[in-house]
Amino acid sequence: MTTAQAGDVVQLVGRDHKHFILRLTPGQQLHTHRGIFEHDALIGRTLGTEVFTHRGDPFFLLQPSTDDLIREIKRNSQIIYPKDIGFILMKLSVRPGVTVVEAGTGSGGLTTVLAQAVGPTGCVISYEVREDMQNLARKNLERVGLADRITFKLRDIAEGFDETDVYALFLDVPNPWDYTGQAYRTLQSGGFFGSLVPTANQVSKLLVSMRREGFDFVEVCEVLLRYYKPVPDRLRPTDRMVAHTGFLIFGRPVIRSTPPPETLEAQDETDDPDLAGDNSAE
Amino acid sequence: MTTAQAGDVVQLVGRDHKHFILRLTPGQQLHTHRGIFEHDALIGRTLGTEVFTHRGDPFFLLQPSTDDLIREIKRNSQIIYPKDIGFILMKLSVRPGVTVVEAGTGSGGLTTVLAQAVGPTGCVISYEVREDMQNLARKNLERVGLADRITFKLRDIAEGFDETDVYALFLDVPNPWDYTGQAYRTLQSGGFFGSLVPTANQVSKLLVSMRREGFDFVEVCEVLLRYYKPVPDRLRPTDRMVAHTGFLIFGRPVIRSTPPPETLEAQDETDDPDLAGDNSAE
Amino acid sequence: MTTAQAGDVVQLVGRDHKHFILRLTPGQQLHTHRGIFEHDALIGRTLGTEVFTHRGDPFFLLQPSTDDLIREIKRNSQIIYPKDIGFILMKLSVRPGVTVVEAGTGSGGLTTVLAQAVGPTGCVISYEVREDMQNLARKNLERVGLADRITFKLRDIAEGFDETDVYALFLDVPNPWDYTGQAYRTLQSGGFFGSLVPTANQVSKLLVSMRREGFDFVEVCEVLLRYYKPVPDRLRPTDRMVAHTGFLIFGRPVIRSTPPPETLEAQDETDDPDLAGDNSAE
Amino acid sequence: MTTAQAGDVVQLVGRDHKHFILRLTPGQQLHTHRGIFEHDALIGRTLGTEVFTHRGDPFFLLQPSTDDLIREIKRNSQIIYPKDIGFILMKLSVRPGVTVVEAGTGSGGLTTVLAQAVGPTGCVISYEVREDMQNLARKNLERVGLADRITFKLRDIAEGFDETDVYALFLDVPNPWDYTGQAYRTLQSGGFFGSLVPTANQVSKLLVSMRREGFDFVEVCEVLLRYYKPVPDRLRPTDRMVAHTGFLIFGRPVIRSTPPPETLEAQDETDDPDLAGDNSAE
Repeated sequence: MTTAQAGDVVQLVGRDHKHFILRLTPGQQLHTHRGIFEHDALIGRTLGTEVFTHRGDPFFLLQPSTDDLIREIKRNSQIIYPKDIGFILMKLSVRPGVTVVEAGTGSGGLTTVLAQAVGPTGCVISYEVREDMQNLARKNLERVGLADRITFKLRDIAEGFDETDVYALFLDVPNPWDYTGQAYRTLQSGGFFGSLVPTANQVSKLLVSMRREGFDFVEVCEVLLRYYKPVPDRLRPTDRMVAHTGFLIFGRPVIRSTPPPETLEAQDETDDPDLAGDNSAE
Repeated sequence: MTTAQAGDVVQLVGRDHKHFILRLTPGQQLHTHRGIFEHDALIGRTLGTEVFTHRGDPFFLLQPSTDDLIREIKRNSQIIYPKDIGFILMKLSVRPGVTVVEAGTGSGGLTTVLAQAVGPTGCVISYEVREDMQNLARKNLERVGLADRITFKLRDIAEGFDETDVYALFLDVPNPWDYTGQAYRTLQSGGFFGSLVPTANQVSKLLVSMRREGFDFVEVCEVLLRYYKPVPDRLRPTDRMVAHTGFLIFGRPVIRSTPPPETLEAQDETDDPDLAGDNSAE
Repeated sequence: MTTAQAGDVVQLVGRDHKHFILRLTPGQQLHTHRGIFEHDALIGRTLGTEVFTHRGDPFFLLQPSTDDLIREIKRNSQIIYPKDIGFILMKLSVRPGVTVVEAGTGSGGLTTVLAQAVGPTGCVISYEVREDMQNLARKNLERVGLADRITFKLRDIAEGFDETDVYALFLDVPNPWDYTGQAYRTLQSGGFFGSLVPTANQVSKLLVSMRREGFDFVEVCEVLLRYYKPVPDRLRPTDRMVAHTGFLIFGRPVIRSTPPPETLEAQDETDDPDLAGDNSAE
Repeated sequence: MTTAQAGDVVQLVGRDHKHFILRLTPGQQLHTHRGIFEHDALIGRTLGTEVFTHRGDPFFLLQPSTDDLIREIKRNSQIIYPKDIGFILMKLSVRPGVTVVEAGTGSGGLTTVLAQAVGPTGCVISYEVREDMQNLARKNLERVGLADRITFKLRDIAEGFDETDVYALFLDVPNPWDYTGQAYRTLQSGGFFGSLVPTANQVSKLLVSMRREGFDFVEVCEVLLRYYKPVPDRLRPTDRMVAHTGFLIFGRPVIRSTPPPETLEAQDETDDPDLAGDNSAE
């Protein structure tokens, strides 16, 4: 049995699926729409069980998933959705111990997952130009106990990044095409680059600047998440869905010693992202 | 400048985007459709630059992304796609240091990413009933230097899992509904459970057994990945796409002390997975 | 210049895109949220121009599209969406002069388009078991001047349809699998059959009964409609979309003189609905 | 029982789902990969039954659906897919008796459906600049007995269309933005305009020119068609799908007497194309 400890980040979920994320702190209270919880009364309780407000209303006491943490982050900007973040982790190959640079920090959603994924031996450096955003993000990261893995920088990235030979870099800014040169110089050659923009016009602009600055293996994609009503005998997709969050663009900064191929045919690789082919060798 | 070292897992990508993943081993050779590479000639070369076969054909020398690793795994079974694995990481909240159980091992695709994500301080226990599959997976994991993070078990999970109080568990088997009881008993209460099945009928069966065994917060979804041709002035989705890999099902094993709500209305939560609401509190 | 005539069905669209569909009738008034229109003042006005309420608020006077007619039908049941109806027309090959049977009538949305498509020389026979629904549908059809092309029947189709040798038949009922025998006997051999159901479980049930009753060339599909914000320099999909309306099932009633093929392989034809192949011959 | 008559357009479908569309002509033969059919032996046979080649291989004798006709048209250009054509019919409100103009003719796929939908009392005028394309289209239309409803014009539409006060017009050309002025002048005010282009950049260009020329109620959308394997106990989407054919753009030519609204907010209407609202009135 795993029990909730002081300092743990937990989630309380009511019958109406209203949820609250909190860090258990002795002496504090949580006020919900269905009554009050004393943190002290939650500390020591078994995770996955029901706990009750002073009014007797039941809530499940849970460890929040990464998906929950992102969805419920306090924000004053558009955040990157978990569906997109999951795929970013795969393409940027984020793993324990590596160093990742991101700009801008925003509300700290992606920052949270990056900090979690690089682990205590890794490092996330996060640039932001707006102080209020940075403060919000820092508060969000502190709340989940991950702030010490982040180096927050308040800076216009037009001036460039301080770091070099960086493993991976992600641009979540309205005009990433203005910073692809800076990104190229910050990344180690062959590093991992990604960006997210909401409109097709932005994708085109970014593609032009990535080609110009020396990025190759460029891919553009969208991740769509379709939920189903989990009713066994009436299984069907939900009526509505989030139809668009943004286009994801990935690429690798390379150093080319031969002229590029004349045709773009190789780019059409992504037209058929078949997993069937096995070209690996030892 | 980061250079390739003996023992590194690297990727060679030709002009035609044919790629080869290999572990650099002094004295070995790689035979490609465009000529031969001596591993010794690759060791010490800068990542992100072009290297040449004995015939003079250029290939880029790169660190493979996690996406690349999965796509090019040697397999003799259907693998879980990176688009799905990324989202599984978000819902199962896999992070450095945790213990994850999976069954079956298959070709080891998900195993690879889990091993990477839990890091050297975490642990992956992977059950498989077919010895040939397990051997293939072990070989795949050894090739990328992650085998030592995995405990491989050759076992029919109908007998149950050896572990208890496990953080997260994933079932990638044709009949997960037969093992939800075992999964429930292995997971810590409130832990993270996930599964993937290709057909709607399997989803229904799994949902029934999850409800029966004590899982709550059940969600069913599909992740769709749509690629675009990365041509700035002719931006368009690719003509074809992978339209279906599988349905993802997630849930949390809970211990209920009050009767469940009479209606299923709360389940419709997933109908509108809006991220706009901020219910978090401190 | 085309002008609106008494008896015409027109649409008035305000600046806020609120729209009103009406049949121009001398002496009548339309009350909108922005003021009143006298029908007499609209009669004789040019279509595609602005007209003004008694308060001076502008509305465009337009001929409603078929899409508009369906979207704004008065309803007390779920209607079939235009995206689905358009594809139904293609698969059922509805065209001027043919006879189509449908059940149930519902609010008359599909009935409206069928009536329009078969033209004055064709015929639509529409079965409904609920009198209130039939009355609503009849009123909707009268409003758009198409009621005389419909034969409304108040009948439980469990008793069978009156017609035989029918060109095409569509079942929009909750339990179409109970009526596939009746449908088979009503259709001419080789005729066109279609149905729409919202859940996967219903699809499975319907497929079983279609096979049993002698339908072949069975296809199951979904039509998804994704809107974009029509802003040239910020082109992007809309944030939300209708993610599901229903599954469409089509088939042809055949008379088989040889045993069916042993494998289902041929069914996988639909797996790759490539239009590239040209097998036609003269 | 409906039997095949001389002059009928029929389809023969083999066990492997290979299909042949032909017009029954006394004295002719059809050579298939499984043997020969004498047209005379097919004339008088019941539709929906099996017929046999001289080698004894069975084929079903069917009336082709509109979907079949389009899919199997002889082509030397990209055609518009049935999924798109069905929705075009709904938005352009094509129905018996109306006049529709299209450019270019291409292989005649859309032309075929338009000719069918307007019926013998309607009219389709189809412009094409390439003579070889026009010849192919005419042959395709003749084969299905619809050529006499089409007025084919060999003309560069930069010179304008001959017609005025046209009900509906569709542009299927690579540069529709060059012809929106001509389209506006050809359509009756308030008429129905549509176009299809494959890339996002083309959509943007077309939107700019439509606004400039006086089109309003502009919508941009994509129709996606997802097939399922029709296996009742293993229901699942097909593995691959056609992911993109083109973007559809619709609009109405209007005559504006008041300045347009300052904000674009009304355009966001399409963001939520809810059918729930019922603004209709009598």
